[in-house]
Amino acid sequence: MLSVIMAGGIGERFWPLSRRRRPKQLLDLTGRGSMIALTLSRVSELSKPEETFVLTSVEQLDAILQEIGDVVPRDNVISEPVGRNTAPSVGLAALVIRSRVGDEPFIVLPADHVVGDADRYNATVKGAAYYASANDSLVTFGITPTRPETGYGYIHAGRAVGDTEELFEVNSFDEKPSAEKAADYLEAGGYYWNSGMFAWRPSVILKAIERFVPALAEVLARIESGVGTESLDDVLKSTYGEAPSVSIDYGVMEKADNVVMASGDFYWNDVGNWESVREVYEEDGDGNVVIGDHVLIDTKNCTIFSSDCLVGAIGLDNVVVVKSKDAILVCKRDRVHQVRDIVQWLKKNKSELI
Amino acid sequence: MLSVIMAGGIGERFWPLSRRRRPKQLLDLTGRGSMIALTLSRVSELSKPEETFVLTSVEQLDAILQEIGDVVPRDNVISEPVGRNTAPSVGLAALVIRSRVGDEPFIVLPADHVVGDADRYNATVKGAAYYASANDSLVTFGITPTRPETGYGYIHAGRAVGDTEELFEVNSFDEKPSAEKAADYLEAGGYYWNSGMFAWRPSVILKAIERFVPALAEVLARIESGVGTESLDDVLKSTYGEAPSVSIDYGVMEKADNVVMASGDFYWNDVGNWESVREVYEEDGDGNVVIGDHVLIDTKNCTIFSSDCLVGAIGLDNVVVVKSKDAILVCKRDRVHQVRDIVQWLKKNKSELI
Repeated sequence: MLSVIMAGGIGERFWPLSRRRRPKQLLDLTGRGSMIALTLSRVSELSKPEETFVLTSVEQLDAILQEIGDVVPRDNVISEPVGRNTAPSVGLAALVIRSRVGDEPFIVLPADHVVGDADRYNATVKGAAYYASANDSLVTFGITPTRPETGYGYIHAGRAVGDTEELFEVNSFDEKPSAEKAADYLEAGGYYWNSGMFAWRPSVILKAIERFVPALAEVLARIESGVGTESLDDVLKSTYGEAPSVSIDYGVMEKADNVVMASGDFYWNDVGNWESVREVYEEDGDGNVVIGDHVLIDTKNCTIFSSDCLVGAIGLDNVVVVKSKDAILVCKRDRVHQVRDIVQWLKKNKSELI
Repeated sequence: MLSVIMAGGIGERFWPLSRRRRPKQLLDLTGRGSMIALTLSRVSELSKPEETFVLTSVEQLDAILQEIGDVVPRDNVISEPVGRNTAPSVGLAALVIRSRVGDEPFIVLPADHVVGDADRYNATVKGAAYYASANDSLVTFGITPTRPETGYGYIHAGRAVGDTEELFEVNSFDEKPSAEKAADYLEAGGYYWNSGMFAWRPSVILKAIERFVPALAEVLARIESGVGTESLDDVLKSTYGEAPSVSIDYGVMEKADNVVMASGDFYWNDVGNWESVREVYEEDGDGNVVIGDHVLIDTKNCTIFSSDCLVGAIGLDNVVVVKSKDAILVCKRDRVHQVRDIVQWLKKNKSELI
């Protein structure tokens, strides 16, 4: 089984821990290792090292190589000179795999999500890849929702396809619904969280890109000459920036008619911000999630991450406190999405802190 | 004019900035220098270096000497082997001054308060010391209150004495009244904040100690033999711990009948905790007092001190954030008095952080 790990994101929402050169996938947000190390460990049950590919950015390349060591062959690590969202990444991965291995199905999965229930996960992924390959389908993975989460996209599943009761046609996508809609979806059933994981053969996804994102297909055509040669990095450097910046969901999946959803009945968490990271930890009796030395007085429902500084808290409720080497975040829990606004400000005014 | 600066306190309420070996009087809480440096600068307008005495603890001695440099002669710095509250300190200072200078009036003032309006302050202090000396009085300084503060003790002034309208008999003391009482005091007039500053001649305060705290007088009698000799530190080491731990207010002032209050119509702030320190700074338009690099989003009425770490705050209201080298305090503003509870916990569990 071929796997492509997408490890080019920045994860600004984990500031002040996440930084330009130490992005989210390199952080230990679960206490069990970096996100990419956990992902590689999971992937190793499905894919051999030579079947595992990592897509990252030139800026992060050194840090990623250092983190993954020799778990993945150096030739299987591809770096984008500039981030252009997921559609170009997927297209590039498809070209590389077609050139190196052939038109075999591959899984696309983000480096920075947490997945549990390994057996069920592996079974779902294998079944989906097999179906995608046999039916020229574009498979997306939907997760059975457990709460009316508004931070995730939703997939409305249609009728079942294939032999199992795990694959469905897709009626529609809804990117981050209102709280009301999310509650309706949960009650109605048949709606799934869009996990950002996919399975397809290179020829099938490249054909879909050609049809729905022709400007990207043109850039990929120019890149193809360099794939499998020593000049790939140079070719990418001169062409990749011209690729349209578009997500594979918006650019292809929401438009194609050969999309199939594999329903995943396993634990999944995109660990998208300081709020969702709480889920992977045990709360103390007052609802606090605390990493690091601390003294808490009348403090409840807080999230505290500080590895090198004791945190003394008094009278706090629903507050996030995060200490990195050179910055501190103190934020109400229902405002963690605004951490990006701090990063935006820093980009203009104190770029050494991003 | 002789001045005795009391610089033996710890100021636990300024944790995590205040530490055992870097107590409050050594902190720069105003942005204009350490508390003791500001106090010495103020005192220098009334007292020559050889007329200025500093009382500190053995534990803080080195740090205090380093901070005050040669502003005060080394012989004028006296260190207590153990803290026994203010009555023993005052008694010891009286012995030293009587031995070194004679029975001349001296001012006692804490090293860690902020005082403004220098001209009025100097005039009040001089007048009070003159009166104390001429009338064998124990003078305490009361500050005209500007708000119904419950964190201060109050002095209820009686009828005026002397020629000025600045000296009064004392009807009673009230240590930290209820909010209701404090409001009544402010409305009624004639009530003053107890500033912890005093003026008297050595013989007068020593006589009062003999009468009201005889156990202390006994210890002082044994100490007196060492005063003015090289063996003072040794004598203190073997005797001082036996002195009763009692404040000069409770032990003497509330009981003596020759107490006079000098009313101070100058700015005074005991800078007692992270709340009162706000007063010496300008607030931003959202009511925040911020020292150090920061990015504030929807944050108001906060107090932020962080000299080496940028603080990003989102959605906070009435929160104190203080970063020291190895600890962080995050505390609701109306709970700053509980900072001492953190220090108590640390004493037992992580004493390297106090």
